Amino acid sequence: MALYESMFGTYNVSCAQVLVTDSDFSNHASLKQFKATIESCLELGVVPIVNENDVISIRTTPLRDENDRIFWDNDSLACFAAAQLNVDAAFLLTDVEGLYDAPPDAPHSQVIHTYTRQADITFGAKSRVGRGGMQAKVAAAYAGIDNGVKAVVIASGYQRNTVLRLMKGHVIGTLFVRNPAPDIDSITERQAHAARDASRALQAVSSDTRTAILKLIAERLVENTDSILAANAKDVRIATASNMDSNLCARLKLTASKIATLADGIRGIAEDTEPIGRVVRQTQVADSLSLEQVTVPIGVLLIIFESRPDALPQIAALALRSGNGLLLKGGKEAQHSNALLHSIIVRAITDASNGTVPKEVVGLVNSRQAVSSLLKLDDCIDLVIPRGSGTLVKFIQTNTRIPVLGHADGICHLFVNHDADAKVAARVAVDAKTDYPAACNALETMLLHRSLVDDGRADSIISALKTAGVHMYGDDEACRRYHLKRVSSFRQEYGNLGMTVAIVRDVKEAVAHINKFGSGHTDSILSTDAEDVRFFLQQVDSACVFHNASTRFADGFRFGLGAEVGISTGKIHARGPVGVDGLVTTKWILQSSSHNGDIVSEFSNGDRKYLHISSKL
Amino acid sequence: MALYESMFGTYNVSCAQVLVTDSDFSNHASLKQFKATIESCLELGVVPIVNENDVISIRTTPLRDENDRIFWDNDSLACFAAAQLNVDAAFLLTDVEGLYDAPPDAPHSQVIHTYTRQADITFGAKSRVGRGGMQAKVAAAYAGIDNGVKAVVIASGYQRNTVLRLMKGHVIGTLFVRNPAPDIDSITERQAHAARDASRALQAVSSDTRTAILKLIAERLVENTDSILAANAKDVRIATASNMDSNLCARLKLTASKIATLADGIRGIAEDTEPIGRVVRQTQVADSLSLEQVTVPIGVLLIIFESRPDALPQIAALALRSGNGLLLKGGKEAQHSNALLHSIIVRAITDASNGTVPKEVVGLVNSRQAVSSLLKLDDCIDLVIPRGSGTLVKFIQTNTRIPVLGHADGICHLFVNHDADAKVAARVAVDAKTDYPAACNALETMLLHRSLVDDGRADSIISALKTAGVHMYGDDEACRRYHLKRVSSFRQEYGNLGMTVAIVRDVKEAVAHINKFGSGHTDSILSTDAEDVRFFLQQVDSACVFHNASTRFADGFRFGLGAEVGISTGKIHARGPVGVDGLVTTKWILQSSSHNGDIVSEFSNGDRKYLHISSKL
Repeated sequence: MALYESMFGTYNVSCAQVLVTDSDFSNHASLKQFKATIESCLELGVVPIVNENDVISIRTTPLRDENDRIFWDNDSLACFAAAQLNVDAAFLLTDVEGLYDAPPDAPHSQVIHTYTRQADITFGAKSRVGRGGMQAKVAAAYAGIDNGVKAVVIASGYQRNTVLRLMKGHVIGTLFVRNPAPDIDSITERQAHAARDASRALQAVSSDTRTAILKLIAERLVENTDSILAANAKDVRIATASNMDSNLCARLKLTASKIATLADGIRGIAEDTEPIGRVVRQTQVADSLSLEQVTVPIGVLLIIFESRPDALPQIAALALRSGNGLLLKGGKEAQHSNALLHSIIVRAITDASNGTVPKEVVGLVNSRQAVSSLLKLDDCIDLVIPRGSGTLVKFIQTNTRIPVLGHADGICHLFVNHDADAKVAARVAVDAKTDYPAACNALETMLLHRSLVDDGRADSIISALKTAGVHMYGDDEACRRYHLKRVSSFRQEYGNLGMTVAIVRDVKEAVAHINKFGSGHTDSILSTDAEDVRFFLQQVDSACVFHNASTRFADGFRFGLGAEVGISTGKIHARGPVGVDGLVTTKWILQSSSHNGDIVSEFSNGDRKYLHISSKL
Repeated sequence: MALYESMFGTYNVSCAQVLVTDSDFSNHASLKQFKATIESCLELGVVPIVNENDVISIRTTPLRDENDRIFWDNDSLACFAAAQLNVDAAFLLTDVEGLYDAPPDAPHSQVIHTYTRQADITFGAKSRVGRGGMQAKVAAAYAGIDNGVKAVVIASGYQRNTVLRLMKGHVIGTLFVRNPAPDIDSITERQAHAARDASRALQAVSSDTRTAILKLIAERLVENTDSILAANAKDVRIATASNMDSNLCARLKLTASKIATLADGIRGIAEDTEPIGRVVRQTQVADSLSLEQVTVPIGVLLIIFESRPDALPQIAALALRSGNGLLLKGGKEAQHSNALLHSIIVRAITDASNGTVPKEVVGLVNSRQAVSSLLKLDDCIDLVIPRGSGTLVKFIQTNTRIPVLGHADGICHLFVNHDADAKVAARVAVDAKTDYPAACNALETMLLHRSLVDDGRADSIISALKTAGVHMYGDDEACRRYHLKRVSSFRQEYGNLGMTVAIVRDVKEAVAHINKFGSGHTDSILSTDAEDVRFFLQQVDSACVFHNASTRFADGFRFGLGAEVGISTGKIHARGPVGVDGLVTTKWILQSSSHNGDIVSEFSNGDRKYLHISSKL
C-alpha cells in the first residue's frame, strides 16, 4: 500500500485499501456494503486497491476447486469486482505482453489479440510470482465477461502507458469479449509476419532461383492465358453492368497480347543485373577490419493499386527480383483477375524454388479493413506504395508511421522559353497534354515566355492546342490575350483536357512558379539557350526535369527500368519512377580477420590507428 | 439560393434566405427581430444565408464612406451578424488562400498567418467578383473583432474542407484576433522557407565555393577558440549549478583540443569527393534522348540534437558539403555555445561565398514550440533527424509527416557461437559493454551458444564481465546457471552497465532472437564457422552486422565517413551511420538533341523504338 500510495502520490491521486475474503461475498449485505464503498471511493476520486485479506483468508488452493468459489486469486477478484460494479472493461496486467500461441520466450510466438474459447493453447508453468499463472487469468477473464464485464484484457504491466494505450484502443495484450468478431487485425498481422519470414527465405536462396521463379511466372502466365481471360471477363462483365467509366474498363480488360507483353517484361526483369548483394562501398577500416556496404532487400512491401490487373504480376516480379516480401491490395473491380494471377504466381514460386520459398512471400489482401490494419504494423511492414488517386495517397500518408513512397499529385509544367520554335512547342505540348490526359505525367500548366506572347509566336501554340481539343484556363494576361477562362488555382491537376496557361518574364520566374505551384513530379523546358537550360535543370526541384521532351516520358518502362512499382515525388529514398533499384536498401558488414577479435578501446587509447581506405563502387 | 439549397441538400441540411439592408439595423426592434430569426433558424438546424436585399438597397459605394455605416458588403455584413450573435469565429471565404505579404500570384508571396495592424501590406486591385476586395475584407474583419467576435479568418473557398480544417485548428488563411500572440508558426515558417531558398543558392554555387566555406569555417573555429571556450564555460557553469549528471557535463564541455579535432574533421569533409552531381545511372533512351540520374541535395534538413555542442559544426559541415539547407535545434543546456558556433558558421558562409549564399542556409531554432511548428511544414522541410532519447525520436516519428531518419532504440547483441574462444569473447563483450555504456551501439544482450554453457567455457566470460562491473540479468537457464537476476524483457536497453544474458541452441535461434527482440541497430557474431557466419551476416536484419568485432565500431567516424548526422535503423533511404552520402537524393534529367523535341506518341505508334542502353555507374 505504501508503494501504491507513493506512486499514485506523484500524480496527486489518493488511494484506499480495501481488503476482502471470499466469504464476505456470500453475505448479500456485506456485498452491498462493498459495492457502496467502492462507489464512494470513486466518487471522491480515490482509487480503491482491492486485495485479499490474507490475514483471515482460509483458502490454500490457488485454483478454483469448487464451483461455488467466488474468487480464487487477485485476477478473479478483480473480475468479480468489475462485474459487481458494472464496469466497461477490466485490465489484468502481468509480466508478459498477453496470451501467446506458444511459450512467450520462443522466437516465433505471437500474442493472441482476441481470445476465443476454441483457441488452441497449451498453458505453460505458472507465473513465478504469487498465485495465478496464465490459465488462472484466462479463467478469471471468462468469469468476468460471463458475469457482465464487457471486455477483459490481459496485458503487460512492464510496458509504458499500457492503460492509456488500451483506453485509446491500441491493439495490445489479449482481449476477451462475449462474442468476438473475426479478428482482422490478427489475421493480417499473421499474413504480414508470414510475408516477412518468407522474404528472409527468399533472400537466402540463390540469385538463379529467384531468376528461375520469374521465368516460371512468365511461362505460366502465357500457359494460363485462357483461364486468365475468363476470370478477367467476369470482372469486365460486372464493371460494364455497373456502368463503369469506359477508360477504367479499358484499363481493366486483359487481352492475350497484353499477357504476352507482360510475360516479356517479367523475363526482362529476370535477366536484369542482380540487385542484391552489390557492394556499394568498401573500406579498409584498419589492418584487420574490413567494411562493406552491400545492397539488401528492404523487407516487406505493401502495395495498393487500382483497376489495371496487369500491375499485379509486374509488381510481384519487381519485388521477387529484389528479394522482398509483398502484400498486395488490388482494386475490387479486378478481384477475379487478381485472385487468379496471384494463385498462378504463388504456385510458380513454390514450384521453381522446390518449396524453399514459402508461398506467403506474395500475399493478397482483400479488404480495406485489412489495409487499415496493415498500416499499423510499422514493426513488420517496411514500405507502403499506394498507386491511385491523390486522396488515397494522402489518406495513407496521414494514417501510418510506415514510410510511404508515391505521389499525391502530378502537376507537370512545360516552360516554352524565348527562343523556342512555336511548331516544336505545339508538338510537344499537344503530346504532353493529350497523349493520355489522365496520367500523372500529363501536362497541366504551360508557361509561356513573355516575348513569345508579345511578338505573336505563341498564337500558333495556343491554336494548335485548341485544335487538339484542349480547354485552356489562363492567368490574367493569358485570359485577356487569348480569351481564356480564368484559372482558379495554379495548383490545378485537371486529369482531362483542361490546361493552365501562364505568362512569365524569364526562366527565373518560370522556375519560381514551378517550385511554388508544382508537385515535384516532372517539368520540362523547351529552349536552346544553354545557360537557361542549365539553370532550369539545376534549379527546378522535381524528381524528373526534361529538356526539349514531353513530360509523358516520365515512366519506368520508358526510362528503361523494365517496369515501375510507382513514381515517387518524395525526396527520401527512391525518387521518380521506381524500379528494382528502389526496392533495395543497404547493410553495413564489418568483418575482423584478427584472432583476438577487434575492440574499439585499442583505437581510442592510441595503440592502433584507423586506416579508412575507401572505395565507392 | 437554389444553388445553396441544392448543395446543402446533398448533406440533408436545409437553408433559409435572410435579406436585409443597412437601414434595417438602425431600427432597434428590427435588429432584435433579425437576431431572433437567425437564432430560431439555428435551433431548427436550418442554415441562414444572409445577404443584402439588393432590390431595395440604396447604397452605391462599395467601400465604407461614412463612419455610421453598419455594413458595406457581404463580408462586413457577415462580421456584423457574427458580432450580434456572439459567435466564436467568423470565416470569410475568398478566392485566394488568405492575406498575402505580396501579390498572391508572385512566386515568393506568403500568406500572413496572423494579421496585426502593424503589418506592412500594400493592397492590390479589388477582387474580380462583386464588391469588396482584400482591403474591404480586412476592414470587415476588424469591425468583427472590435465588436466582440473572438476570431475572424480570411481563407480560401476553393480549397477542400476549409471550414472543417479551420475548426480543427489547422493554420490556414489569415487570422484576426484582438490581441495576437507572437506568431511562432509564422516566424518558423519564414525561417524554413528562407533555408529552402538559401539551399537553392548553395546548390547553384560551385563545388569549390562549398569547399571554401567549409575550410573557412574550420579556420574561424580555431581562430575563435577563446571566445568559444568562454561561451561554453557559461553553459558548463549553469549546468554544474543545476547539478547536471557528470557524464552529460563532460559531453557539454569543450576544450581547445576538441575544437582543433573538430576543425580537422571539417577539413576532411571539405576535401572528400564532391557528393552532388554524381551520375549514378546513364541511359540512352532513344537515338536523340539521353537520360541521367544524378545526385542532388535533399533540400532542407531539421536536425535536433542534445548536449554535445561540437555536433553543431559537424552537422553543419555535412549539410553544407551536400548542398542542403539546415535548421538546427540544440539542447538548452548548450545554448551559449551553440549560439556562438552558429554565428561563426554563418559569418564564414557569407564571407567565403561573397554573399552569394544567404546566411539563412543554416538556421538556429531556439524553442520547443518552434520545433512543433516546424514539424508541420512537410511541404518545406524534407527530412528530420532527431538525435537523442528514444522518447524524443518516437515523439517526432508520431508527430510529423516529414520523413524521420534515426533510431529510437539501440538494443545491440553479441552472439558467442559454439567455436568461439572464451578469452576473445570476454575481451569483445567487455569492450562492447563497458567502453561507453550510454552509447546506442553499446552491447545490451549477449547470446551464448548452449555448448559453451554445457562444457563450462562460458564461465570465464561471465566472470570477466562481472569483474568489469557488468550487472547481468538472465533468461531462466542463465539465471540458474550463473545466479543472475531474471530479465524482465528481452527488449531492455540498459544504457548503463546492465546486460542481458540468454542461452540459445544454435545460430538459427540466435538470429531469430535478434530479429525478434533487437532494434535493427548493430549485432555481432563471434565465430570461425564460415557457414554460421555467412548465415548470421545475411539473415540478421540490422543496419550493421559484425563478425568478430565489438558493436562499438558502429559509428560514422569509425566507419570512415568523416562524421555522422545520426544512425538510422530505418529501412528506407540511408541506413546505419549517415554521412554526406545519406544527405543526397537523385533527380532524373532527360535531354533531347532532336530539333523537333521528343514526344511519346512517335514511340507508341511504332514509328520509333526505345534503345534503353543503360550503364549503372
